[in-house]
Amino acid sequence: MGRWEPDARGRLGKAALELFDERGYEQTTVAEIANRAGLTERTFFRHYADKREVLFAGSAALQDLIVGAVAATPEGTAPIDAIAAGLDAAADQIFRGAHRHARRRQALVSAHTDLQERELVKLAALSSALTRTLRGRGVTEPAASLAAEAGTAVFRVAFERWVGEADQPRELADVIHESLAEFKSLTAAG
Amino acid sequence: MGRWEPDARGRLGKAALELFDERGYEQTTVAEIANRAGLTERTFFRHYADKREVLFAGSAALQDLIVGAVAATPEGTAPIDAIAAGLDAAADQIFRGAHRHARRRQALVSAHTDLQERELVKLAALSSALTRTLRGRGVTEPAASLAAEAGTAVFRVAFERWVGEADQPRELADVIHESLAEFKSLTAAG
Repeated sequence: MGRWEPDARGRLGKAALELFDERGYEQTTVAEIANRAGLTERTFFRHYADKREVLFAGSAALQDLIVGAVAATPEGTAPIDAIAAGLDAAADQIFRGAHRHARRRQALVSAHTDLQERELVKLAALSSALTRTLRGRGVTEPAASLAAEAGTAVFRVAFERWVGEADQPRELADVIHESLAEFKSLTAAG
Repeated sequence: MGRWEPDARGRLGKAALELFDERGYEQTTVAEIANRAGLTERTFFRHYADKREVLFAGSAALQDLIVGAVAATPEGTAPIDAIAAGLDAAADQIFRGAHRHARRRQALVSAHTDLQERELVKLAALSSALTRTLRGRGVTEPAASLAAEAGTAVFRVAFERWVGEADQPRELADVIHESLAEFKSLTAAG
Protein backbone atom coordinates (compact mmCIF):
# COMPACT_ATOMS: atom_id res chain seq x y z
CA MET A 1 0.00 0.00 0.00
CA GLY A 2 1.29 3.44 -0.91
CA ARG A 3 2.02 6.21 1.54
CA TRP A 4 -0.04 8.78 -0.35
CA GLU A 5 -2.17 9.36 2.75
CA PRO A 6 0.00 11.01 5.31
CA ASP A 7 -1.54 9.82 8.56
CA ALA A 8 -2.40 6.43 10.05
CA ARG A 9 -5.52 7.87 11.65
CA GLY A 10 -6.88 9.11 8.34
CA ARG A 11 -5.98 5.88 6.55
CA LEU A 12 -7.77 3.80 9.16
CA GLY A 13 -10.82 6.02 8.92
CA LYS A 14 -10.92 5.73 5.14
CA ALA A 15 -10.45 1.96 5.25
CA ALA A 16 -13.20 1.61 7.84
CA LEU A 17 -15.70 3.58 5.75
CA GLU A 18 -14.87 1.53 2.66
CA LEU A 19 -15.38 -1.72 4.53
CA PHE A 20 -18.57 -0.51 6.22
CA ASP A 21 -19.86 0.23 2.71
CA GLU A 22 -18.77 -3.07 1.22
CA ARG A 23 -19.57 -5.51 4.03
CA GLY A 24 -21.83 -3.63 6.37
CA TYR A 25 -20.97 -1.88 9.62
CA GLU A 26 -21.77 -4.84 11.88
CA GLN A 27 -19.84 -7.36 9.82
CA THR A 28 -16.59 -5.38 9.66
CA THR A 29 -13.89 -6.21 12.20
CA VAL A 30 -11.08 -4.02 13.50
CA ALA A 31 -8.58 -6.55 12.10
CA GLU A 32 -10.04 -6.07 8.61
CA ILE A 33 -9.90 -2.30 8.93
CA ALA A 34 -6.27 -2.35 10.00
CA ASN A 35 -5.39 -4.79 7.20
CA ARG A 36 -7.09 -2.67 4.54
CA ALA A 37 -5.14 0.36 5.77
CA GLY A 38 -1.88 -1.59 5.68
CA LEU A 39 -1.50 -1.19 9.44
CA THR A 40 -1.75 -3.39 12.52
CA GLU A 41 -4.64 -3.83 14.95
CA ARG A 42 -2.35 -2.42 17.61
CA THR A 43 -2.01 0.76 15.58
CA PHE A 44 -5.79 0.91 15.23
CA PHE A 45 -6.24 0.87 18.99
CA ARG A 46 -3.62 3.56 19.43
CA HIS A 47 -5.95 5.86 17.45
CA TYR A 48 -9.49 4.65 18.23
CA ALA A 49 -11.13 3.08 21.28
CA ASP A 50 -13.41 0.94 19.10
CA LYS A 51 -14.99 0.54 15.67
CA ARG A 52 -17.73 3.07 16.36
CA GLU A 53 -15.23 5.76 17.33
CA VAL A 54 -13.93 5.87 13.75
CA LEU A 55 -17.16 7.54 12.64
CA PHE A 56 -16.93 10.22 15.31
CA ALA A 57 -13.22 10.81 15.15
CA GLY A 58 -13.67 14.31 13.78
CA SER A 59 -16.16 15.52 16.42
CA ALA A 60 -13.64 17.01 18.82
CA ALA A 61 -11.76 18.83 16.06
CA LEU A 62 -15.05 20.10 14.62
CA GLN A 63 -16.16 21.42 17.99
CA ASP A 64 -12.78 23.04 18.69
CA LEU A 65 -12.77 24.73 15.30
CA ILE A 66 -16.30 26.12 15.66
CA VAL A 67 -15.76 27.29 19.24
CA GLY A 68 -12.43 28.86 18.29
CA ALA A 69 -13.98 30.77 15.39
CA VAL A 70 -16.83 32.01 17.61
CA ALA A 71 -14.32 33.17 20.22
CA ALA A 72 -12.30 34.96 17.53
CA THR A 73 -15.16 37.20 16.37
CA PRO A 74 -14.90 40.86 17.45
CA GLU A 75 -16.26 41.77 20.86
CA GLY A 76 -19.86 42.93 20.57
CA THR A 77 -20.69 40.67 17.60
CA ALA A 78 -24.34 39.58 17.90
CA PRO A 79 -24.45 36.00 19.30
CA ILE A 80 -26.16 34.56 16.23
CA ASP A 81 -23.54 36.15 13.96
CA ALA A 82 -20.70 34.85 16.11
CA ILE A 83 -22.21 31.36 15.81
CA ALA A 84 -22.59 31.82 12.06
CA ALA A 85 -18.88 32.62 11.82
CA GLY A 86 -18.16 29.37 13.65
CA LEU A 87 -20.29 27.33 11.25
CA ASP A 88 -18.65 29.04 8.29
CA ALA A 89 -15.23 28.08 9.57
CA ALA A 90 -16.31 24.43 9.88
CA ALA A 91 -17.83 24.40 6.41
CA ASP A 92 -14.70 25.92 4.88
CA GLN A 93 -11.97 24.13 6.75
CA ILE A 94 -13.50 20.70 7.34
CA PHE A 95 -16.24 20.04 4.81
CA ARG A 96 -15.14 21.83 1.62
CA GLY A 97 -14.87 19.18 -1.09
CA ALA A 98 -15.82 16.45 1.40
CA HIS A 99 -19.37 15.85 0.20
CA ARG A 100 -18.89 12.27 -0.91
CA HIS A 101 -17.27 11.24 2.35
CA ALA A 102 -19.89 13.05 4.43
CA ARG A 103 -22.70 11.47 2.43
CA ARG A 104 -21.39 7.95 2.88
CA ARG A 105 -20.86 8.50 6.58
CA GLN A 106 -24.35 9.91 7.05
CA ALA A 107 -25.94 6.94 5.29
CA LEU A 108 -24.25 4.68 7.83
CA VAL A 109 -25.23 6.77 10.84
CA SER A 110 -28.85 6.99 9.66
CA ALA A 111 -29.05 3.21 9.37
CA HIS A 112 -27.96 2.45 12.94
CA THR A 113 -29.79 3.60 16.06
CA ASP A 114 -26.69 3.46 18.26
CA LEU A 115 -24.80 5.68 15.81
CA GLN A 116 -27.72 8.13 15.65
CA GLU A 117 -27.73 8.36 19.44
CA ARG A 118 -24.01 8.97 19.46
CA GLU A 119 -24.49 11.76 16.91
CA LEU A 120 -27.14 13.38 19.12
CA VAL A 121 -24.73 13.27 22.07
CA LYS A 122 -22.00 14.94 19.98
CA LEU A 123 -24.38 17.68 18.82
CA ALA A 124 -25.53 18.27 22.41
CA ALA A 125 -21.88 18.58 23.43
CA LEU A 126 -21.32 21.12 20.66
CA SER A 127 -24.32 23.13 21.82
CA SER A 128 -23.04 23.10 25.42
CA ALA A 129 -19.57 24.21 24.32
CA LEU A 130 -21.08 27.07 22.30
CA THR A 131 -23.21 28.11 25.27
CA ARG A 132 -20.13 28.25 27.50
CA THR A 133 -18.22 30.24 24.90
CA LEU A 134 -21.00 32.81 24.53
CA ARG A 135 -21.38 33.13 28.30
CA GLY A 136 -17.64 33.68 28.53
CA ARG A 137 -18.11 36.60 26.14
CA GLY A 138 -20.70 38.14 28.44
CA VAL A 139 -23.86 36.94 26.69
CA THR A 140 -26.56 36.44 29.34
CA GLU A 141 -29.07 33.60 29.65
CA PRO A 142 -31.29 32.51 28.06
CA ALA A 143 -29.76 34.25 25.02
CA ALA A 144 -26.52 32.24 25.21
CA SER A 145 -28.26 28.84 25.34
CA LEU A 146 -30.80 29.82 22.69
CA ALA A 147 -28.17 31.10 20.25
CA ALA A 148 -26.10 27.97 20.79
CA GLU A 149 -29.11 25.70 20.25
CA ALA A 150 -30.14 27.71 17.21
CA GLY A 151 -26.67 27.43 15.72
CA THR A 152 -26.54 23.70 16.32
CA ALA A 153 -30.01 23.31 14.79
CA VAL A 154 -29.03 25.29 11.69
CA PHE A 155 -25.88 23.21 11.33
CA ARG A 156 -27.80 19.96 11.70
CA VAL A 157 -30.54 20.87 9.24
CA ALA A 158 -28.08 22.29 6.70
CA PHE A 159 -25.82 19.26 6.99
CA GLU A 160 -28.71 16.88 6.37
CA ARG A 161 -29.82 18.86 3.34
CA TRP A 162 -26.28 18.94 2.04
CA VAL A 163 -25.64 15.20 2.31
CA GLY A 164 -29.04 14.66 0.69
CA GLU A 165 -27.92 16.47 -2.47
CA ALA A 166 -27.06 13.61 -4.79
CA ASP A 167 -26.04 15.37 -8.01
CA GLN A 168 -23.81 18.41 -8.26
CA PRO A 169 -23.98 19.16 -4.56
CA ARG A 170 -23.37 22.69 -3.39
CA GLU A 171 -20.71 23.46 -0.80
CA LEU A 172 -21.90 23.08 2.79
CA ALA A 173 -21.15 26.76 3.41
CA ASP A 174 -23.80 27.73 0.83
CA VAL A 175 -26.41 25.44 2.39
CA ILE A 176 -25.62 26.86 5.83
CA HIS A 177 -26.07 30.42 4.54
CA GLU A 178 -29.40 29.47 3.01
CA SER A 179 -30.59 27.78 6.20
CA LEU A 180 -29.45 30.67 8.35
CA ALA A 181 -31.31 33.17 6.18
CA GLU A 182 -34.42 30.99 6.27
CA PHE A 183 -34.07 30.68 10.01
CA LYS A 184 -33.94 34.43 10.47
CA SER A 185 -36.95 35.05 8.24
CA LEU A 186 -38.83 32.33 10.10
CA THR A 187 -38.54 34.10 13.43
CA ALA A 188 -38.96 37.54 11.89
CA ALA A 189 -42.34 36.42 10.54
CA GLY A 190 -43.52 35.25 13.96
CA MET B 1 -52.28 2.08 50.92
CA GLY B 2 -55.14 4.40 49.95
CA ARG B 3 -56.62 4.67 46.49
CA TRP B 4 -56.28 8.45 46.39
CA GLU B 5 -54.20 8.16 43.23
CA PRO B 6 -56.50 6.95 40.52
CA ASP B 7 -54.14 5.04 38.25
CA ALA B 8 -51.61 2.28 38.75
CA ARG B 9 -49.33 3.82 36.14
CA GLY B 10 -49.20 7.13 37.98
CA ARG B 11 -48.74 5.47 41.36
CA LEU B 12 -45.84 3.40 40.06
CA GLY B 13 -44.26 6.50 38.59
CA LYS B 14 -44.57 8.42 41.83
CA ALA B 15 -43.21 5.51 43.88
CA ALA B 16 -40.26 5.11 41.51
CA LEU B 17 -39.32 8.79 41.76
CA GLU B 18 -39.52 8.68 45.57
CA LEU B 19 -37.29 5.63 45.71
CA PHE B 20 -34.82 7.01 43.16
CA ASP B 21 -34.55 10.06 45.45
CA GLU B 22 -34.18 8.08 48.66
CA ARG B 23 -31.94 5.22 47.57
CA GLY B 24 -30.52 6.29 44.25
CA TYR B 25 -31.58 5.32 40.75
CA GLU B 26 -29.18 2.38 40.40
CA GLN B 27 -30.02 0.88 43.78
CA THR B 28 -33.80 0.84 43.32
CA THR B 29 -35.39 -2.40 42.08
CA VAL B 30 -38.68 -2.89 40.27
CA ALA B 31 -39.89 -5.03 43.20
CA GLU B 32 -39.34 -2.11 45.58
CA ILE B 33 -41.17 0.29 43.27
CA ALA B 34 -44.17 -2.04 43.00
CA ASN B 35 -44.19 -2.59 46.75
CA ARG B 36 -44.08 1.13 47.52
CA ALA B 37 -47.01 1.67 45.16
CA GLY B 38 -48.97 -1.16 46.80
CA LEU B 39 -48.94 -3.12 43.55
CA THR B 40 -47.25 -6.22 42.18
CA GLU B 41 -44.18 -6.54 39.99
CA ARG B 42 -46.44 -8.07 37.37
CA THR B 43 -48.52 -4.91 37.35
CA PHE B 44 -45.34 -2.86 36.97
CA PHE B 45 -44.37 -4.74 33.83
CA ARG B 46 -47.85 -4.32 32.39
CA HIS B 47 -47.17 -0.58 32.43
CA TYR B 48 -43.41 -0.21 31.89
CA ALA B 49 -40.82 -2.21 29.98
CA ASP B 50 -38.14 -1.46 32.57
CA LYS B 51 -37.07 0.89 35.38
CA ARG B 52 -35.75 3.54 33.01
CA GLU B 53 -39.05 3.72 31.13
CA VAL B 54 -40.75 5.18 34.20
CA LEU B 55 -38.87 8.42 33.71
CA PHE B 56 -39.91 8.72 30.06
CA ALA B 57 -43.46 7.49 30.45
CA GLY B 58 -44.90 10.89 29.60
CA SER B 59 -42.88 11.43 26.39
CA ALA B 60 -45.41 9.98 23.96
CA ALA B 61 -48.32 11.88 25.53
CA LEU B 62 -46.26 15.09 25.51
CA GLN B 63 -45.38 14.67 21.85
CA ASP B 64 -48.98 13.84 20.88
CA LEU B 65 -50.27 16.86 22.74
CA ILE B 66 -47.78 19.27 21.15
CA VAL B 67 -48.27 17.86 17.66
CA GLY B 68 -52.04 17.94 18.08
CA ALA B 69 -52.01 21.57 19.18
CA VAL B 70 -49.77 22.53 16.24
CA ALA B 71 -52.11 20.75 13.84
CA ALA B 72 -55.11 22.54 15.38
CA THR B 73 -53.82 26.06 14.67
CA PRO B 74 -55.58 27.89 11.82
CA GLU B 75 -54.32 27.30 8.31
CA GLY B 76 -51.77 29.93 7.36
CA THR B 77 -50.43 30.37 10.90
CA ALA B 78 -46.69 31.13 10.71
CA PRO B 79 -44.72 27.93 11.49
CA ILE B 80 -43.01 29.42 14.55
CA ASP B 81 -46.38 30.55 15.94
CA ALA B 82 -47.94 27.13 15.32
CA ILE B 83 -45.05 25.58 17.26
CA ALA B 84 -45.49 28.16 20.03
CA ALA B 85 -49.14 27.10 20.36
CA GLY B 86 -47.98 23.50 20.75
CA LEU B 87 -45.53 24.39 23.51
CA ASP B 88 -48.21 26.46 25.26
CA ALA B 89 -50.56 23.48 25.26
CA ALA B 90 -47.87 21.29 26.83
CA ALA B 91 -47.05 23.87 29.48
CA ASP B 92 -50.72 24.31 30.39
CA GLN B 93 -51.98 20.78 30.23
CA ILE B 94 -48.98 18.79 31.39
CA PHE B 95 -46.66 20.98 33.43
CA ARG B 96 -48.92 23.45 35.24
CA GLY B 97 -48.33 22.97 38.95
CA ALA B 98 -45.87 20.17 38.26
CA HIS B 99 -42.66 22.06 39.03
CA ARG B 100 -41.58 19.96 41.99
CA HIS B 101 -42.02 16.69 40.12
CA ALA B 102 -40.27 18.03 37.02
CA ARG B 103 -37.37 19.34 39.11
CA ARG B 104 -36.81 16.02 40.86
CA ARG B 105 -37.00 14.13 37.59
CA GLN B 106 -34.53 16.49 35.91
CA ALA B 107 -32.02 16.12 38.75
CA LEU B 108 -32.08 12.38 38.16
CA VAL B 109 -31.74 12.64 34.40
CA SER B 110 -28.86 15.12 34.70
CA ALA B 111 -26.98 12.74 36.98
CA HIS B 112 -27.04 9.75 34.63
CA THR B 113 -25.50 9.67 31.15
CA ASP B 114 -27.82 6.94 29.89
CA LEU B 115 -30.87 8.94 30.96
CA GLN B 116 -29.48 12.08 29.31
CA GLU B 117 -29.01 10.16 26.08
CA ARG B 118 -32.54 8.85 26.28
CA GLU B 119 -33.79 12.41 26.78
CA LEU B 120 -31.90 13.54 23.66
CA VAL B 121 -33.51 10.74 21.67
CA LYS B 122 -36.98 11.78 22.88
CA LEU B 123 -36.34 15.42 21.96
CA ALA B 124 -35.07 14.40 18.52
CA ALA B 125 -38.25 12.35 18.05
CA LEU B 126 -40.34 15.38 19.04
CA SER B 127 -38.47 17.52 16.52
CA SER B 128 -39.03 14.94 13.77
CA ALA B 129 -42.75 14.71 14.60
CA LEU B 130 -43.05 18.50 14.47
CA THR B 131 -41.24 18.59 11.13
CA ARG B 132 -43.65 16.03 9.67
CA THR B 133 -46.63 17.96 11.02
CA LEU B 134 -45.45 21.24 9.48
CA ARG B 135 -44.71 19.54 6.15
CA GLY B 136 -48.21 18.09 6.24
CA ARG B 137 -49.49 21.66 6.51
CA GLY B 138 -47.61 22.66 3.39
CA VAL B 139 -44.55 24.25 5.01
CA THR B 140 -41.58 23.70 2.69
CA GLU B 141 -38.03 22.71 3.60
CA PRO B 142 -35.82 23.87 5.18
CA ALA B 143 -38.41 26.03 6.97
CA ALA B 144 -40.27 23.02 8.40
CA SER B 145 -37.16 21.40 9.90
CA LEU B 146 -35.80 24.72 11.15
CA ALA B 147 -39.05 25.74 12.86
CA ALA B 148 -39.32 22.28 14.45
CA GLU B 149 -35.73 22.41 15.67
CA ALA B 150 -36.21 25.97 16.92
CA GLY B 151 -39.34 24.98 18.84
CA THR B 152 -37.62 21.98 20.39
CA ALA B 153 -34.65 24.17 21.34
CA VAL B 154 -36.89 26.79 22.96
CA PHE B 155 -38.72 24.07 24.87
CA ARG B 156 -35.48 22.52 26.06
CA VAL B 157 -33.89 25.77 27.16
CA ALA B 158 -37.08 27.00 28.85
CA PHE B 159 -37.59 23.69 30.62
CA GLU B 160 -34.06 23.71 31.99
CA ARG B 161 -34.46 27.27 33.23
CA TRP B 162 -37.79 26.40 34.80
CA VAL B 163 -36.57 23.37 36.73
CA GLY B 164 -33.60 25.46 37.84
CA GLU B 165 -35.89 27.94 39.60
CA ALA B 166 -35.64 26.82 43.21
CA ASP B 167 -37.84 29.34 45.03
CA GLN B 168 -41.24 30.56 43.92
CA PRO B 169 -40.89 29.10 40.44
CA ARG B 170 -42.90 30.63 37.62
CA GLU B 171 -45.18 28.49 35.49
CA LEU B 172 -43.43 26.83 32.55
CA ALA B 173 -45.70 28.72 30.14
CA ASP B 174 -44.21 32.03 31.33
CA VAL B 175 -40.65 30.79 30.90
CA ILE B 176 -41.47 29.52 27.42
CA HIS B 177 -42.93 32.90 26.45
CA GLU B 178 -39.81 34.63 27.74
CA SER B 179 -37.50 32.26 25.86
CA LEU B 180 -39.52 32.55 22.67
CA ALA B 181 -39.39 36.35 22.81
CA GLU B 182 -35.66 36.24 23.48
CA PHE B 183 -35.27 33.80 20.61
CA LYS B 184 -37.03 36.09 18.19
CA SER B 185 -35.03 39.14 19.24
CA LEU B 186 -31.84 37.10 18.93
CA THR B 187 -32.43 36.34 15.29
CA ALA B 188 -33.87 39.78 14.59
CA ALA B 189 -30.61 41.31 15.84
CA GLY B 190 -28.54 39.15 13.51
